[in-house]
Amino acid sequence: MLEHGGKLRQAAHKYDIPLENWLDLSTGINPDGWPVPIIPSSAWERLPEDEDELIHAAKSYYGATHLLPVAGSQAAIQTLPLLRKKSRVAILSPAYAEHAHAWKSAEHDLTPLAFEDVETAMNTNNFDVLLLVNPNNPTGQQFSPETLLALHKKLAGRGGWLIIDEAFVDSTPDISLAAMTHQQGLIILRSLGKFFGLAGARVGFVLAETPLLDALKNRLGPWTISGPARFVASKALQDQAWQEKMRLQLNHEGQRLKKLLSRHGLEPTGGTTLFQWLCCDHASMIHENMAQQGILTRLFIDPHSIRFGLPNSENGWQRLDLALSQMRPGVSS
Amino acid sequence: MLEHGGKLRQAAHKYDIPLENWLDLSTGINPDGWPVPIIPSSAWERLPEDEDELIHAAKSYYGATHLLPVAGSQAAIQTLPLLRKKSRVAILSPAYAEHAHAWKSAEHDLTPLAFEDVETAMNTNNFDVLLLVNPNNPTGQQFSPETLLALHKKLAGRGGWLIIDEAFVDSTPDISLAAMTHQQGLIILRSLGKFFGLAGARVGFVLAETPLLDALKNRLGPWTISGPARFVASKALQDQAWQEKMRLQLNHEGQRLKKLLSRHGLEPTGGTTLFQWLCCDHASMIHENMAQQGILTRLFIDPHSIRFGLPNSENGWQRLDLALSQMRPGVSS
Repeated sequence: MLEHGGKLRQAAHKYDIPLENWLDLSTGINPDGWPVPIIPSSAWERLPEDEDELIHAAKSYYGATHLLPVAGSQAAIQTLPLLRKKSRVAILSPAYAEHAHAWKSAEHDLTPLAFEDVETAMNTNNFDVLLLVNPNNPTGQQFSPETLLALHKKLAGRGGWLIIDEAFVDSTPDISLAAMTHQQGLIILRSLGKFFGLAGARVGFVLAETPLLDALKNRLGPWTISGPARFVASKALQDQAWQEKMRLQLNHEGQRLKKLLSRHGLEPTGGTTLFQWLCCDHASMIHENMAQQGILTRLFIDPHSIRFGLPNSENGWQRLDLALSQMRPGVSS
Repeated sequence: MLEHGGKLRQAAHKYDIPLENWLDLSTGINPDGWPVPIIPSSAWERLPEDEDELIHAAKSYYGATHLLPVAGSQAAIQTLPLLRKKSRVAILSPAYAEHAHAWKSAEHDLTPLAFEDVETAMNTNNFDVLLLVNPNNPTGQQFSPETLLALHKKLAGRGGWLIIDEAFVDSTPDISLAAMTHQQGLIILRSLGKFFGLAGARVGFVLAETPLLDALKNRLGPWTISGPARFVASKALQDQAWQEKMRLQLNHEGQRLKKLLSRHGLEPTGGTTLFQWLCCDHASMIHENMAQQGILTRLFIDPHSIRFGLPNSENGWQRLDLALSQMRPGVSS
């Protein structure tokens, strides 16, 4: 298992700054998430049932005909590799690290592919599985639907899979292939963790053809999602007014973060509406300097880079602005 | 996967009685569960962290030194069989059916054992694993701690496991072996589904030695329990005043249900504070008759038997009393 969590607590300890004084920009989670209403007590009391509103609400939101609710995309990430015999698996790199970890743990043959090499590599190699994150985390790079469909066609023709982790696609739904997942060998992972800001709920979905969903469901067993989380997810997926407002808001805030960083000499290499990413020699110095000022960012080692999430309030924006302006000369590139 | 859920919906459809008019006695869940307070919004927003209060609260409640929170005991039930190479597994029968299903699915050699045969069979066979439910569901039969410790000693001496599902033990904590689980090869499953009435939360615990918990954790992956469920479980496990009051209340209600059924000629074969169980030729007729009156019970085929859970209100008690008195002559034994 990769190490996760507790990063903020560790930072609070290391820099001797109380937990409540930190501005946490280390995640790509929407800091203004869907407002959770009162939960009916029956959701806590009774075993969750597949026959509630969740599947219907999700099919409608994603425009997909077949899907399986899972306890966060993590549940699917670690189970999909168990559904294939030893395969040649190409994985976008860098990308969310749990994917490579899961396929490696299940003893498949892994080939990391840089974004710009994916199409060429797929033309010259007989991979069984191609795993992409779109838009990618942390680089923000995007594949177009046309490119993805061409890649899928190649794989599906030989019984292969194209798996696309669309955790960050909700702000830009036009690049999603959710509506195409009735096709054999096209598997899409979605989650309510990022755009909806409900990372604690542990609700995600696998969109794919029925036999694959049945195999996944059989592996994962019954009642993997809590009743209250099913209730909240059902309502969030149906709240179109909030979704439309939030798309505009996040597009604005993504741009605002990009401009703010650029103004301080930290031009982002890439990003999405929910984070900006800088690949630069000074990444760890910037990370350290921000931490000394009580702002937690996410540092990546390979490639050496840093990711900033969105501040959670106007006060947070101003604090980030001030902290960036107080960075030692020579740190900004 | 065994079929679960939707039973109340199916009954509503079959007997043409609206969902909201049913008295559901088909589960063994406490109908007066722990009262869930307002959940802090951060529990929904942030990824759940292992460093919250949950593990500490659980260790204190169970009196155990090592445990792993899991998304309901179901998560442990289906994962434990994957942690052993093909083994000779003895399973109490009848008992909660998911256990046998999980060990069979993982291709172990299963031997069902009747309650009264367990000790003899363990003396004459070299089983690798013994799986008990204590108190048992649905029979209500109980093994004493002395018997269990003797069985464990035999198994542990040859690298075997004694697994005890204690889902229904919270009302009678004196028969629990939770405090002994620092010993090698003793594995106990607990859950907040029954006594605490939080079946929808999907929170359970595995109490066992550390290497086994590490192996389980590695299989299950990170963030399997939702943030709100971790919060609620932490608070419920710490609420000693409620727990003491509820033990008295459930002991009273268990006796009340036993007496009520007996008064109508349905002397229970066994039971716990949360359900009463009747093994009798008329089980399916009683089940059918109750259903026609909008009361859902749980029917078992092998052995032919019926289980009654606790009514959720005084009105429910009276409705059950009336329904039993209106049963056709000849149905009651």
